[in-house]
Amino acid sequence: MAMKRAATSAIRAFSSASPASSVSSGSSTRLLHASAESKKIVGVFYKANEYASLNPNFVGSLEGALGIRDWLESQGHQYIVTDDKEGLDSELEKHIPDLHVLITTPFHPAYVTAERIKRAKNLQLLLTAGIGSDHIDLKAAAAAGLTVAEVTGSNVVSVAEDELMRILILVRNFLPGYHQVINGEWNVAAIAYRAYDLEGKTVGTVGAGRIGKLLLQRLKPFNCNLLYHDRLKMDPELEKQTGAKFEEDLDSLLSKCDVVVINTPLTEKTRGMFDKERIAKMKKGVLIVNNARGAIMDTQAVVDACSSGQIGGYSGDVWNPQPAPKDHPWRYMPNHAMTPHISGTTIDGQLRYAAGVKDMLDRYFKGEEFPPQNYIVKEGKLASQYL
Amino acid sequence: MAMKRAATSAIRAFSSASPASSVSSGSSTRLLHASAESKKIVGVFYKANEYASLNPNFVGSLEGALGIRDWLESQGHQYIVTDDKEGLDSELEKHIPDLHVLITTPFHPAYVTAERIKRAKNLQLLLTAGIGSDHIDLKAAAAAGLTVAEVTGSNVVSVAEDELMRILILVRNFLPGYHQVINGEWNVAAIAYRAYDLEGKTVGTVGAGRIGKLLLQRLKPFNCNLLYHDRLKMDPELEKQTGAKFEEDLDSLLSKCDVVVINTPLTEKTRGMFDKERIAKMKKGVLIVNNARGAIMDTQAVVDACSSGQIGGYSGDVWNPQPAPKDHPWRYMPNHAMTPHISGTTIDGQLRYAAGVKDMLDRYFKGEEFPPQNYIVKEGKLASQYL
Repeated sequence: MAMKRAATSAIRAFSSASPASSVSSGSSTRLLHASAESKKIVGVFYKANEYASLNPNFVGSLEGALGIRDWLESQGHQYIVTDDKEGLDSELEKHIPDLHVLITTPFHPAYVTAERIKRAKNLQLLLTAGIGSDHIDLKAAAAAGLTVAEVTGSNVVSVAEDELMRILILVRNFLPGYHQVINGEWNVAAIAYRAYDLEGKTVGTVGAGRIGKLLLQRLKPFNCNLLYHDRLKMDPELEKQTGAKFEEDLDSLLSKCDVVVINTPLTEKTRGMFDKERIAKMKKGVLIVNNARGAIMDTQAVVDACSSGQIGGYSGDVWNPQPAPKDHPWRYMPNHAMTPHISGTTIDGQLRYAAGVKDMLDRYFKGEEFPPQNYIVKEGKLASQYL
Repeated sequence: MAMKRAATSAIRAFSSASPASSVSSGSSTRLLHASAESKKIVGVFYKANEYASLNPNFVGSLEGALGIRDWLESQGHQYIVTDDKEGLDSELEKHIPDLHVLITTPFHPAYVTAERIKRAKNLQLLLTAGIGSDHIDLKAAAAAGLTVAEVTGSNVVSVAEDELMRILILVRNFLPGYHQVINGEWNVAAIAYRAYDLEGKTVGTVGAGRIGKLLLQRLKPFNCNLLYHDRLKMDPELEKQTGAKFEEDLDSLLSKCDVVVINTPLTEKTRGMFDKERIAKMKKGVLIVNNARGAIMDTQAVVDACSSGQIGGYSGDVWNPQPAPKDHPWRYMPNHAMTPHISGTTIDGQLRYAAGVKDMLDRYFKGEEFPPQNYIVKEGKLASQYL
């Protein structure tokens, strides 16, 4: 069953031949133009409620719906959006059996499990509005011949900026001061005894892909010692420009850094990689920024290290799972500067990933290829970082 | 009386002739070496209490006392430190009649009024451990022939870093997300509807002295439109390096900026310069960062503009007065990201300004000149920015 679907969906999504040849034989209509074959497209987005009307560019919300409703409906497609994504009674689940395309975001992810893929008999295309498709069981998606793609690059600047903000918030010990202000207090010493300049500190990024590189460029004028760890050395020109030094051995990097920033995708290799043992290899009082994915960390190990002082501060906007439940321990650990998953969904980021999703849908309807860097699963094959 | 003191103190502090000639005729001892003439030095610093022992480099606190006690006492000087600085019953006031040197910080400033100067009959030297000597009545100090000096440059990097942090906190709407986390909530939309990237925004600094220039350098890789207003254009090389454009007319700059950063000293010209009228000239929803001095703003005008939405966010660490009282309205206005005065008193900054104070005391004892850029009042003359 899955394989049969795989074959037709692969044709539908990727054929670069004429549109006529991209229509599956099981289809009831065979007209050439895109609207002829009506698709059911479901989008899962966070709900804006009273905030929806406050900004005309708020396209990333349920109400904004990426700003593509009129465009989709004018071509005869059905477009359903919901934020109700969990469990068999959810709104999303009702549409699983007959949807063709599922769009979701990392900020309010629809978890696409192997079971859901099995039930989604018409599913062809999974689009991530943003970056990071780990909410999808990629092996199951590949086995079913589905296509998974994201809007690579759409919010890398957004995330890199946010990381630098978090580094400064931790290094400079911003939050205790803010708390004093709103609590009617004034105690400079209680802030200053552990407030530092970023200048002269050693900052390392674990992962120097698009976001890591942008972060290093923004760190450059702060006169830090910059280190990076990745599978590959970066372009010598960029290494020279940022002054960042390659550390082939992760533990060697960790032992040197005052600040560690995590910039790897969540894969089977990175899941839980920052466990008790690895955190113990870092400098006492290390500051950690993680806007990558929550599951890269061992949740309890982070709590324990923040409590013991091994971690001096932890800031990020990614959690496992999302939304984080009320009793998630990262909400209550000392010296955190956490937010809900927000860094990639600035208004600027939303406009870019909405445009990227629209572009891929347009190509999908026309049977054209996507930009190559957007593919996470293409014709049953995973992108290299997920292998 | 004041004039007589002026003459002797001017000699004591600034004579570059031999130490012998720098001893006033009214002095009871005339030995050549510094310890011969015992000075009474009073330092006013914020109290660290239980935080004092937590960091051996915490020299900026009352307990740390700039790390110069042994050095001063070994030379026969008396060194008294206190945090009790307000009113006639304060510990500071007890020492006003016979102190020779008063050291204080902008973070917990001893307000040196004309009345205090009149009572301080032995006072010769006022040192600011940090930058900004507006807590001193500079005209009265000049008229009395006192010397006022600060550790110019000691914490400019600290403040510039902190400003960039605050820009990002406001632009990216960090605090509402943080509040959600600690309150057990998760509502991405309530953050995202007014979260932006810094990239592409127009950022202007009012004042492009040491701190303003460092900020512009750090902003450069963020790909903003950078503007600056100052009395003078900066060095063409630095203008080229940062890409910042000069705006001769302040109101012209204000009308263009998404983010305004205030980097002017507090002088008679800048006191209250951001009043209702000037704030109204800014873009609706402007974000303001002010780590310069609280009194540059009209306090109530800022509250009103934050409440109306004319100001979209206000962040800074300077208040009028300091410590800010419990009922200071900036603690309670919407969309603020305020802290107590902290940006220049990082541990790194403390070590630098402690070293700078020690250096100036050493020169004072030896009758040597200070580094020229440190003088705020020299031999009865104010530095140019205060004229």
